[in-house]
Amino acid sequence: MDRNSLIQAIKSKSTYLCVGLDTDINRIPHHLRNAKDPVFEFNKQIIDATIDHCVAYKPNIAFYEALGSSGWESLAKTIAYIPKDIFTIADAKRGDIGNTSKLYAKAFFETMDFDSITVAPYMGEDSVVPFLEFEDKWVILLAHTSNPGSADFQLLEDQHGIPLFEKVLTTSQKWPQSDRLMYVVGATRADKIKRIRQLAPNSFFLVPGVGAQGGDLQAVSAAGLTNDCGLLVNSSRNIIYASAKEDFAREAKNQASLVHEQMKKLLDQYCHV
Amino acid sequence: MDRNSLIQAIKSKSTYLCVGLDTDINRIPHHLRNAKDPVFEFNKQIIDATIDHCVAYKPNIAFYEALGSSGWESLAKTIAYIPKDIFTIADAKRGDIGNTSKLYAKAFFETMDFDSITVAPYMGEDSVVPFLEFEDKWVILLAHTSNPGSADFQLLEDQHGIPLFEKVLTTSQKWPQSDRLMYVVGATRADKIKRIRQLAPNSFFLVPGVGAQGGDLQAVSAAGLTNDCGLLVNSSRNIIYASAKEDFAREAKNQASLVHEQMKKLLDQYCHV
Repeated sequence: MDRNSLIQAIKSKSTYLCVGLDTDINRIPHHLRNAKDPVFEFNKQIIDATIDHCVAYKPNIAFYEALGSSGWESLAKTIAYIPKDIFTIADAKRGDIGNTSKLYAKAFFETMDFDSITVAPYMGEDSVVPFLEFEDKWVILLAHTSNPGSADFQLLEDQHGIPLFEKVLTTSQKWPQSDRLMYVVGATRADKIKRIRQLAPNSFFLVPGVGAQGGDLQAVSAAGLTNDCGLLVNSSRNIIYASAKEDFAREAKNQASLVHEQMKKLLDQYCHV
Repeated sequence: MDRNSLIQAIKSKSTYLCVGLDTDINRIPHHLRNAKDPVFEFNKQIIDATIDHCVAYKPNIAFYEALGSSGWESLAKTIAYIPKDIFTIADAKRGDIGNTSKLYAKAFFETMDFDSITVAPYMGEDSVVPFLEFEDKWVILLAHTSNPGSADFQLLEDQHGIPLFEKVLTTSQKWPQSDRLMYVVGATRADKIKRIRQLAPNSFFLVPGVGAQGGDLQAVSAAGLTNDCGLLVNSSRNIIYASAKEDFAREAKNQASLVHEQMKKLLDQYCHV
């Protein structure tokens, strides 16, 4: 998906919600567990219920890998089921030497038809560039994550007091095809998002952690929205596990719809897409 | 596999060679391509041919993921085929927030029975610790990789001139169950390995890049070997693609045997396992 199509989708639906498909076989409602492919059946019903309220879906690849080859099949079916006008994110946090990254890119951009993949920056330029060579595909590079351990290395400062995550932001924007970069920016502190917005004024940020990890949608949006929107805010468990019963899809829709209502107002208030 | 068993295997075989199973469907000899599962068939023959000369196998997960669910099945069959007295490494470079890392650990330590997995440190302690909770399983944390991009972030220095990869080494050794940590240490510069050995005197290092990436076995071993050996040196393409013809397994054995001979001498010279 190209940038204009993504912005157009946000504009026409008035939402920048991404629904995280962290589908845990142990949390799927009981009545689905005898389905032929419970994970896909759950995802299908979640997608049908929430598609009017979001612009993106983000399967967390670990949940599928933990099931072995059958999980991989559920993932492939899920990604094939999502309509092409919806942005898809493989939350995979991959990254390896060049020829290996190329194969990961092939796995997620060709074998499956994801629009984007999350990538870890530790191995530097030649580990990321192979992902950037695919037209209309995106790399969402880890910049500042929202977990406690993010402080261990991402906040380490150089001689000039510049933390590692800022170096990742500024260095990566000099790489070839860096217009295909987005960034993962954790939502736990809005002041950080404001600073990161200064460093990457035109980039889309994928913001996880609103809700379960304690981020605040209002504060995040005030700090991060641009005239092109520039944000994809993810919610996983709050939506997909809103109910553990037969009404799970309806409750997921209700939760997604609540976020959608807030996002409509925030888009009106902070940006002019 | 526990530490003593690994050291015992190195001692009894006089080798610290790890064979990288970077099995590329496009490089498998033609006569195998009509096999029911060409990737597994290739791996099986490579394992049979090289098993007397190595103590570890390292499938590069990207090569299997690129094939979708069938690749995942080839990988599961491969790992089940490797005898339990051989150390196995999932070269996956995973790492995510805690509950997600737990699922990756489950995928590689339970769904499949790998002894170890490579993990990227960018997200810090709570992204790594879930992997460390499995008894007799190992995390091989990226410290200093051998690719050109390693300079982008791993060499960034703090106010005291300490580069990021050294921080990763010293910080991670303070984490719970850090006795289950090994480190990825690229082989392109022996002086770096010497320095890293000072910072982690008792840890095993997985050294990729000897051969194809230009590392020198003699220099790496002189700098990195300890009395417990402390090294696993990986070779992938030089061994598994030694020939593209029907004699591929025999040629792989020949190449592995050449490395084995060198390692015998180096173990005699530098350590007393």
